[in-house]
Amino acid sequence: MTTAVREGPGPGAAEPAALRIDTLHGSLDDPSLDSMNLLNEVAQRFPDAVSFAAGRPYEGFFEVEEVHRHLRAFCDHLSLDRGWPEEEVRRLLFQYGRTKGVINDLVARNLTVDEGIEADPEAIVVTVGCQEAMFLVLRALRTDDRDAVLAVSPTYVGLNGAAQLADLPVLPVRAGEYGVDLDDLARTVRRARAEGLRPRALYVIPDFSNPLGISLDLDTRRRLLDLASRLDLLLLEDNPYGLFPAGTARLPTLKALDTGRRVVYLGSFAKTALPGARVGYVVADQVVTDGTGRRLGLLADQLAKVKSMLTVNTSPLAQAVVAGKLLENDHSLVRANARQADLYRGNLRMMSDGLARRFPAGSGVTWNTPGGGFFLVLTVPFRTDDTLLEHSARQHRVIWTPMHHFYAGRRHTHQIRLSYSLLQPEQISAGLDGLAALVDEQRSGL
Amino acid sequence: MTTAVREGPGPGAAEPAALRIDTLHGSLDDPSLDSMNLLNEVAQRFPDAVSFAAGRPYEGFFEVEEVHRHLRAFCDHLSLDRGWPEEEVRRLLFQYGRTKGVINDLVARNLTVDEGIEADPEAIVVTVGCQEAMFLVLRALRTDDRDAVLAVSPTYVGLNGAAQLADLPVLPVRAGEYGVDLDDLARTVRRARAEGLRPRALYVIPDFSNPLGISLDLDTRRRLLDLASRLDLLLLEDNPYGLFPAGTARLPTLKALDTGRRVVYLGSFAKTALPGARVGYVVADQVVTDGTGRRLGLLADQLAKVKSMLTVNTSPLAQAVVAGKLLENDHSLVRANARQADLYRGNLRMMSDGLARRFPAGSGVTWNTPGGGFFLVLTVPFRTDDTLLEHSARQHRVIWTPMHHFYAGRRHTHQIRLSYSLLQPEQISAGLDGLAALVDEQRSGL
Repeated sequence: MTTAVREGPGPGAAEPAALRIDTLHGSLDDPSLDSMNLLNEVAQRFPDAVSFAAGRPYEGFFEVEEVHRHLRAFCDHLSLDRGWPEEEVRRLLFQYGRTKGVINDLVARNLTVDEGIEADPEAIVVTVGCQEAMFLVLRALRTDDRDAVLAVSPTYVGLNGAAQLADLPVLPVRAGEYGVDLDDLARTVRRARAEGLRPRALYVIPDFSNPLGISLDLDTRRRLLDLASRLDLLLLEDNPYGLFPAGTARLPTLKALDTGRRVVYLGSFAKTALPGARVGYVVADQVVTDGTGRRLGLLADQLAKVKSMLTVNTSPLAQAVVAGKLLENDHSLVRANARQADLYRGNLRMMSDGLARRFPAGSGVTWNTPGGGFFLVLTVPFRTDDTLLEHSARQHRVIWTPMHHFYAGRRHTHQIRLSYSLLQPEQISAGLDGLAALVDEQRSGL
Repeated sequence: MTTAVREGPGPGAAEPAALRIDTLHGSLDDPSLDSMNLLNEVAQRFPDAVSFAAGRPYEGFFEVEEVHRHLRAFCDHLSLDRGWPEEEVRRLLFQYGRTKGVINDLVARNLTVDEGIEADPEAIVVTVGCQEAMFLVLRALRTDDRDAVLAVSPTYVGLNGAAQLADLPVLPVRAGEYGVDLDDLARTVRRARAEGLRPRALYVIPDFSNPLGISLDLDTRRRLLDLASRLDLLLLEDNPYGLFPAGTARLPTLKALDTGRRVVYLGSFAKTALPGARVGYVVADQVVTDGTGRRLGLLADQLAKVKSMLTVNTSPLAQAVVAGKLLENDHSLVRANARQADLYRGNLRMMSDGLARRFPAGSGVTWNTPGGGFFLVLTVPFRTDDTLLEHSARQHRVIWTPMHHFYAGRRHTHQIRLSYSLLQPEQISAGLDGLAALVDEQRSGL
């Protein structure tokens, strides 16, 4: 008989309990979930290598005092602007909070100011980063083995992870030339339904996507919304990088264009406020009904129920720090991130110029020039994998992300993702020198 | 064909998408998950009623300045005691952090000082409250429909919720006279295995349990550990209230007595540090092996993988605040909670005396006198349910928790849970007056 716990060699209570990996959840056996661990581990083993791998916000502007200031700004807002008694302010910060969140009105105001999205604060659930928001939605949409989620491929690693944890298969949809191949989307949905599957939603990053760095143009956004309606799908819009365009113009989000409540908007403050707060949110204004069509509330209410079993509520202290940052910037993260946006713009220019200098036409190396964000993709004349990554880190002191990690490890590629958000100019040029040396070496070996 | 998204009446993209509840995860259809919502909702509708329902820590000692002080204490510790450069301190607070946590060494030190538990910091995963720790363990232990978790019944509502979210059935085990009926445990495991189920672990709160307020004596703890080893089960020990004994003596936790790595220890800072940080942890030192018995690491490493897909990491800011509180109290939460422990002791005395005055022998009302914690159980000569609760709140201005909520709503009882942790003396006596009036009214109606 298979039992939950296997004894170590020899019987007896003193023998330590041991667990076999095949007695644990299937997701834990999946190599694709080691992607992030592997990349972090390589970065730790080669600390003096330049890392184009980490998609983290720039750290140079962080100040510890900021946290204290944000916290005070929010407390002052509660007591002065809203006239809360001291006791109520203390309770909000220290005590268990509302599952949906305690700063929903400020998040809604921020969405109006920065995105032109009019969200009912009651349609918002404040989450432990965008990752929890993804899991809440995927878990809620999974009723049995027939349910599935679609994702533009290559896909953010965290989406595949959350889906596996929710026992939800991910059906890849080609990115194509415009960020999502609408014909392939329609084909994939029809095929899945013919096989008895229920594709519930499409996960997409319309602005400066991770990993490709490309964006959907306005026409594609409109056609995607229309197709989602005709295919009877939800759209899970993830928007961590939208505030960082290379130019000045920004396109409207899918949610801003959404007239049919097709879009579940996944929001993150990790890149725009501070990662260390681990605060994100989801806007889920879809109506939920019972079998007779009677309105039970919003999808956000159902997600809050899932959250109450998962994390109870998002740290009110962490929410307060983010709220303070919003209040200090008239609810605008565009305004709060003016310096950061400039820096990312400059880094992208440096990347493009530096790549052009090192890889002239005919070098066999090409890359895309994204309209903003943290990432670009380099195509090289040889296969990229984790072994080559380790060699690159040791030999050429440069770390990057092999693209196969964004295909759930199920595909070989000649591409790598380069992230430039965390780097100083001198690091960028040193890293690109390392890449050039790697390419020379590999090509001579061809 | 069932589809993920149902259109509202009439076709067309402009029609808002609507979702039927039966196209969402089964747990969302379960009334038992509304328990907490219902209780909160009653409390909100009758704000001037005394609430014996909320199991929250006392608020009277909260001070906003505390948060700033804790944060500074931790930053000073990093830069002064450990000599971290300013840049590293900033990175730890602001940037994404290690999935397992950034204060594991301080948590381990606290476990040594307060509980006599020697935990390897690498066997600890810092979580978003104890609720996430529960879900991580239950999700990890669920491989397919045959897996199940055992729980001493009546059970903390959050355990049932987390289990449902992990698609894991909960098999109740009688609490009996000693907090867990070991014969019933053995019987239940044998029966489950005969039915082809795999009971993986027993969830238990050995100290001042929620909802019963009773504790396992030392002999029962030893026999439970021995039985768990013979039955090849893990023990999930939840210990939110252990630092609040009515007397001075405290019993060793199961983990402190555990020589066989049988116990997965679920830790909470919500009652002992501050709920608003949403920081808890799990100690999972069980060895995980592959099919050939080769060591892959600790269960904690697997739980960290689940966490990386769920919340990525626990807010380093929130961890820093808790760490500061530990540092300011020589790593002892017993010391940090001296005032709180006194207050809970006094409240329990007030409850016992007040109940004795109002319900003399022959009144048909009885109650237990717990050895500490936040809760006691009142048995009344009539059935208790949510309708009576609402009547009690409106008519007698007193709120309490009907015991059926702790049986996943599957059982009628004549009992209610009374929580006294949040109350002032005058509230306790007013609340008990309300209870007395309710009992008189109901008995005259019998």
